[in-house]
Amino acid sequence: MQSAESHDRLPALHWDEHGLITAVVQDVTTNAVLMVAWMNSDALRLTEQTGEAHFWSRSRGELWHKGATSGNVMRVVELRVDCDEDTLLLRVDPAGPACHTGATSCFYRTLEDLRN
Amino acid sequence: MQSAESHDRLPALHWDEHGLITAVVQDVTTNAVLMVAWMNSDALRLTEQTGEAHFWSRSRGELWHKGATSGNVMRVVELRVDCDEDTLLLRVDPAGPACHTGATSCFYRTLEDLRN
Repeated sequence: MQSAESHDRLPALHWDEHGLITAVVQDVTTNAVLMVAWMNSDALRLTEQTGEAHFWSRSRGELWHKGATSGNVMRVVELRVDCDEDTLLLRVDPAGPACHTGATSCFYRTLEDLRN
Repeated sequence: MQSAESHDRLPALHWDEHGLITAVVQDVTTNAVLMVAWMNSDALRLTEQTGEAHFWSRSRGELWHKGATSGNVMRVVELRVDCDEDTLLLRVDPAGPACHTGATSCFYRTLEDLRN
């Protein structure tokens, strides 16, 4: 019953109406904000069990082991939670760029860039 | 028609079904992630017009000028957007603690802290 046992150990996080929680990913070395994604309880459990970031892909409707295809996995060094327990902060050591565009961070543009 | 004009200048951000977008707030000096909140288009417009962070409070159902009560306003130095335009990153110079608990950042606990 490893799965149920792990689930029991989860703190009282506030999952949204879809069973998801926002996850901000930050580079533990540079402190750059790399990306924002979503986790369900399975993604969080897999992240803690493997030490690598797992998310829930809302567009694909499936669990997503970040870097499983690209090799750019993210080793989770620290998992933090905010004051009202509805957002996680993953401090990670990334094996490569976080963004599917090849950029180090998904936040590679300012709002001004987007306008121009 | 200043309001409509400003609105027209907003880039094609991907607001969710409630008209909101996730906003991650980062200290521009320390690079600490301070908090995560939500913005609607009015909050974003007011943020850009005033240079101080405004959010949409989902719990109170109203616009929220961060620091209006506490004095701990956040001067927005840079507004970044992620690759799929559904998350904003506000890089700010905060006048005081971000968290209502008095902590510098809302992410003052690890998941382990929460369990213990």
